[in-house]
Amino acid sequence: MGIPNNSNIKLRNKFKKGKLNLITDVPGVKVGQVTKIDNEKNIHTGVTTIIPREGNIFRNKVLAGTSIINGFGKSVGLVQIDELGTIETPIVMTNTFGVGTALNALTKYMLEQNEEIGVSTGTVNCVVTECNDGELNDIRGMHVTEQDVFDSIANAADEFEEGVVGSGTGMICMEMKGGIGSASRIVNCDGKDYTIGAILMSNFGMKGNLRINGTLADDKYVKNDKPEKGSCIILIGTDLPLNERQLRRVAKRATVGLARTGSFLGNGSGDIAIAFSNGNVIPHFSDKKIFDVRMFNDDKIDDIFEATAEAVEECVISSLYHAETVTGIRDRKVLCLKENYGESIY
Amino acid sequence: MGIPNNSNIKLRNKFKKGKLNLITDVPGVKVGQVTKIDNEKNIHTGVTTIIPREGNIFRNKVLAGTSIINGFGKSVGLVQIDELGTIETPIVMTNTFGVGTALNALTKYMLEQNEEIGVSTGTVNCVVTECNDGELNDIRGMHVTEQDVFDSIANAADEFEEGVVGSGTGMICMEMKGGIGSASRIVNCDGKDYTIGAILMSNFGMKGNLRINGTLADDKYVKNDKPEKGSCIILIGTDLPLNERQLRRVAKRATVGLARTGSFLGNGSGDIAIAFSNGNVIPHFSDKKIFDVRMFNDDKIDDIFEATAEAVEECVISSLYHAETVTGIRDRKVLCLKENYGESIY
Amino acid sequence: MGIPNNSNIKLRNKFKKGKLNLITDVPGVKVGQVTKIDNEKNIHTGVTTIIPREGNIFRNKVLAGTSIINGFGKSVGLVQIDELGTIETPIVMTNTFGVGTALNALTKYMLEQNEEIGVSTGTVNCVVTECNDGELNDIRGMHVTEQDVFDSIANAADEFEEGVVGSGTGMICMEMKGGIGSASRIVNCDGKDYTIGAILMSNFGMKGNLRINGTLADDKYVKNDKPEKGSCIILIGTDLPLNERQLRRVAKRATVGLARTGSFLGNGSGDIAIAFSNGNVIPHFSDKKIFDVRMFNDDKIDDIFEATAEAVEECVISSLYHAETVTGIRDRKVLCLKENYGESIY
Amino acid sequence: MGIPNNSNIKLRNKFKKGKLNLITDVPGVKVGQVTKIDNEKNIHTGVTTIIPREGNIFRNKVLAGTSIINGFGKSVGLVQIDELGTIETPIVMTNTFGVGTALNALTKYMLEQNEEIGVSTGTVNCVVTECNDGELNDIRGMHVTEQDVFDSIANAADEFEEGVVGSGTGMICMEMKGGIGSASRIVNCDGKDYTIGAILMSNFGMKGNLRINGTLADDKYVKNDKPEKGSCIILIGTDLPLNERQLRRVAKRATVGLARTGSFLGNGSGDIAIAFSNGNVIPHFSDKKIFDVRMFNDDKIDDIFEATAEAVEECVISSLYHAETVTGIRDRKVLCLKENYGESIY
Repeated sequence: MGIPNNSNIKLRNKFKKGKLNLITDVPGVKVGQVTKIDNEKNIHTGVTTIIPREGNIFRNKVLAGTSIINGFGKSVGLVQIDELGTIETPIVMTNTFGVGTALNALTKYMLEQNEEIGVSTGTVNCVVTECNDGELNDIRGMHVTEQDVFDSIANAADEFEEGVVGSGTGMICMEMKGGIGSASRIVNCDGKDYTIGAILMSNFGMKGNLRINGTLADDKYVKNDKPEKGSCIILIGTDLPLNERQLRRVAKRATVGLARTGSFLGNGSGDIAIAFSNGNVIPHFSDKKIFDVRMFNDDKIDDIFEATAEAVEECVISSLYHAETVTGIRDRKVLCLKENYGESIY
Repeated sequence: MGIPNNSNIKLRNKFKKGKLNLITDVPGVKVGQVTKIDNEKNIHTGVTTIIPREGNIFRNKVLAGTSIINGFGKSVGLVQIDELGTIETPIVMTNTFGVGTALNALTKYMLEQNEEIGVSTGTVNCVVTECNDGELNDIRGMHVTEQDVFDSIANAADEFEEGVVGSGTGMICMEMKGGIGSASRIVNCDGKDYTIGAILMSNFGMKGNLRINGTLADDKYVKNDKPEKGSCIILIGTDLPLNERQLRRVAKRATVGLARTGSFLGNGSGDIAIAFSNGNVIPHFSDKKIFDVRMFNDDKIDDIFEATAEAVEECVISSLYHAETVTGIRDRKVLCLKENYGESIY
Repeated sequence: MGIPNNSNIKLRNKFKKGKLNLITDVPGVKVGQVTKIDNEKNIHTGVTTIIPREGNIFRNKVLAGTSIINGFGKSVGLVQIDELGTIETPIVMTNTFGVGTALNALTKYMLEQNEEIGVSTGTVNCVVTECNDGELNDIRGMHVTEQDVFDSIANAADEFEEGVVGSGTGMICMEMKGGIGSASRIVNCDGKDYTIGAILMSNFGMKGNLRINGTLADDKYVKNDKPEKGSCIILIGTDLPLNERQLRRVAKRATVGLARTGSFLGNGSGDIAIAFSNGNVIPHFSDKKIFDVRMFNDDKIDDIFEATAEAVEECVISSLYHAETVTGIRDRKVLCLKENYGESIY
Repeated sequence: MGIPNNSNIKLRNKFKKGKLNLITDVPGVKVGQVTKIDNEKNIHTGVTTIIPREGNIFRNKVLAGTSIINGFGKSVGLVQIDELGTIETPIVMTNTFGVGTALNALTKYMLEQNEEIGVSTGTVNCVVTECNDGELNDIRGMHVTEQDVFDSIANAADEFEEGVVGSGTGMICMEMKGGIGSASRIVNCDGKDYTIGAILMSNFGMKGNLRINGTLADDKYVKNDKPEKGSCIILIGTDLPLNERQLRRVAKRATVGLARTGSFLGNGSGDIAIAFSNGNVIPHFSDKKIFDVRMFNDDKIDDIFEATAEAVEECVISSLYHAETVTGIRDRKVLCLKENYGESIY
């Protein structure tokens, strides 16, 4: 839902929001989450999975591009996206030490869905992304299970929660409770409406650095006292027929949303953006050597770039807006936005 | 000088400013400019040249890294910086169609300074950057001369002007008069003060998109009506002994400064950042195969990243602050910041 | 013409050669050259220009991708090719210190052809590439003129010479006389023949490193005694409807041709490949935001990659095959292939 | 051991070989392998692990750089190597669907060795690389276990086998049995001998494409009848104090070795090279902001590039030389080099 219109938080918006104001406003995109909280065992983690299109994604792939904003990260699958320009699996977000298990789970899911993989055709490039939730979660315990990933795929739907849910459960953003945020924007091209949606897990930034343009110019600006250990994974989806180069360009504009809300792309923040489009579909099996596809006119792409920046900016603030205060491992208490800045900000 | 402390414009600053609050606060860095204005001939252009260290730069090179923020640009010399990690000439900024002439001039200057180039040693990698000033300047007239480049090198000094000067003479930023902006910050490392300086020519952005955090949350936000044809070249210099990979990382943080002030990295904006350090010097001629150099602890680099973002943010606003209204070719009149937002903002 | 079939030089060829066995076998591609030799003035240089398609290239651009094999080079225009995926001018090859003049000439040519540039539309991204011919040529004299570039464009045709001509006039390859080489290959896709052509200027490599597979396994292998100061520019053209990502992949395969003939990608060798396709055309002016284009099935692209490697391999050997012994500046005499290895190799 | 000197296979060698002619000639480097063969269960796979230096690698990291030669691959950890220039774990090679399990195992190993990870410091970037061995191995069965990875680390030593061992067990190279190959070269710098070692798993290439310069110019050159599904992972280690940019350059020269032996960098071949140096060590914990390190003189780096190319070339041939014929899943029989070309080639 992003930031409700009746909130005191006023972001500058040039573009119309989608119906749900979520990435799932993009036709065919679904999101599923598993939230794992067990205060006894210091578990504050989870899985958030994005399904980029309907139908068999391996046999009909979506186009994609990435932006390694700051490469202090352990995401899996990015190299092949850059080479081939496609994504052929759901996209999993989880914690850093859950990547191996999520990769195994996603591989098994893909093998089950596609009997030809590893037999009559090659392998499959699973995309798993991560942030470090070790400030609140017992990350060394490696509590994410393969079943969590299967469940996140199974429960994928149009509606989903933001804040302290899924892979955002243990995240911290600018020393406040972060988590999952999402938003969407509508752009009109050649007489038809298309959607740009974004989802992120916010885990970056320094205390006192928050900026909410139009509402808050934080006066709590403080000296950096410890290095950032965060990260931010941003996924951008659209039904616009952008090609893989153009999606790389779109992914790059995620940086703008981060910078406007207070990030300076800290050393330890593995900030990685992936943009995909289901407006073109690339078949895995085809006898044809030459395909017809559509691409966008780069000369008219500014609206798409600006709408992306706007959506990502809202995602960051929304992840904070929806989060509640959490106390995690080693009695680490992380206050939510409201408890940092007061009710009036809401 | 950046934004004076007594201005009404309040930027959020965490770091101490350098003495002049210019890139020339970095020891050894000089800046020279030639401003070309001829209203009869519709000339509104110029040259701004940055000298990265004292002494013969070819024989003792500075380390450098680049960030192609948006590659819609025609700068020269970037490929070799990425491969070898060094800059071996002054860095020239001018207009897009002045690049060939500036390249010839810079080549001749280097040949004159170094008789061995092209004889007993290889060639030289000249760095020339550019923005399109064709909205105000008769860019098709190709009015930049080789002498302009020689003059800009000859008059390089610690003190220099910002605003409608040098290569910034014909620049437009968010539909206001842009130009040259500069700023510097001090960071302390292992008990010693080091300087991070930045200079840019601002030529990017959409009308109504300006953001001045702490002062202005522009309510003039308007629909994009025409594509951006601008660009922004950002040079960052320091005496910190960063290595070439780390300078690449620093250059990437220029994006933060652009985004905070209103850029969304428009399609037509060739946004390119170059960071250099004269804290390490690489000899051109040496019999030794192995050198001692210094590098920075990446785990402690956050202050440097944040100070860079802060300096670049101030550079953008400073380029607007110091600019005056200009009327150029085809009677195009571009108002300055003050005439757009009123005296009170100053 | 590449290597004639009746030569003793036997390269391994899997693919059919084009009619002329030159890059101009690609429909629409033309090559023009100006050779500048003046023994009195120690001039051994020139210009070779490739026209990538018929008609106005600015208004209807070709798709393109680059590969920076080794970035010790000063080529101009590569950054924008990577960002936008297009080439919009002829591609000029010349010597390193001729780049500024060639850039000015190409800019003037484009301005003359297109009155809207710099007025009602943006600027133009000229592509100029270079190698250092300073071993034989008085490169410090900067003898390439704007007229040379205009002439090379004006005389562009299907037939052109290889060896000591155009920009290859002063080149040295593995301590033998190098220069211009070209070749082409035919691949069949969905029942239609398409052409892959290549042209290069060979200026790389160490003495004794030559490998001609099937003919020569050089036993002159000698210790490296001095650093390489060469380079190799490789242009690959095709009418196959590859997209910009795929052209980047094709450009990367130029390395295979270099490596097979004796290159180890020496430090000082600015090896840069550019691949373009006129099988898709991108309009500069269009009201449509979404275009129909064609792309290739990556799963069937192996023939294209291998044909590219084969063509580039032949280009290197052909540049040597067609070159004659030259004595240049400082009485530097560089023997041709025949004088190094004897008539029998021919 | 690479290719024995008394073999009929004659490669062109300019550089002296190390004592064992293995990557472990680099001081501090060890290799451990686990070979998994079970004909009943169609298991033909394994793990090969490279230890880049003695002592705790997390606390004192090696410098590293990568080259994505062709990014059709699923290796893990590369993004962070590029950002930070370091490797902080052993490097595991295994099959494509073993990556998740190997990542989990390596994570657990690192957590056990370093109690501070995920508590008082950040996470850890595990490096796991892969090729697809599904032609011979039941890759869908996911038979690699965490214990296999632990065992490969535990048995790491100076001496190790090449051919059908470790992660090379199920590999196929140019339709012959491939596998593990290794070699080393000595270069002298400023009066001291240093070692460049390489190890690879060969799984690339088309039938009939083999080239052994000096011995075999294969006349079996045949039309491509099916797409390549292979890959090649190449690891290069050295005690030379190269910095991270220079290691990236070295990694790029792996391509030369592949191309000389018959690769054209096929679409489906995930060819990835990683180069590391233990000649500089980067501490994880340090109060100092500025370090002293050593870097190499790029102007003298040609020997290192050429020795790397030579070592990688030998690695490919050595992987074939040491391999025996194998019959795997679906009764797929893959002949070894000798059975393809006869004893005389040995």
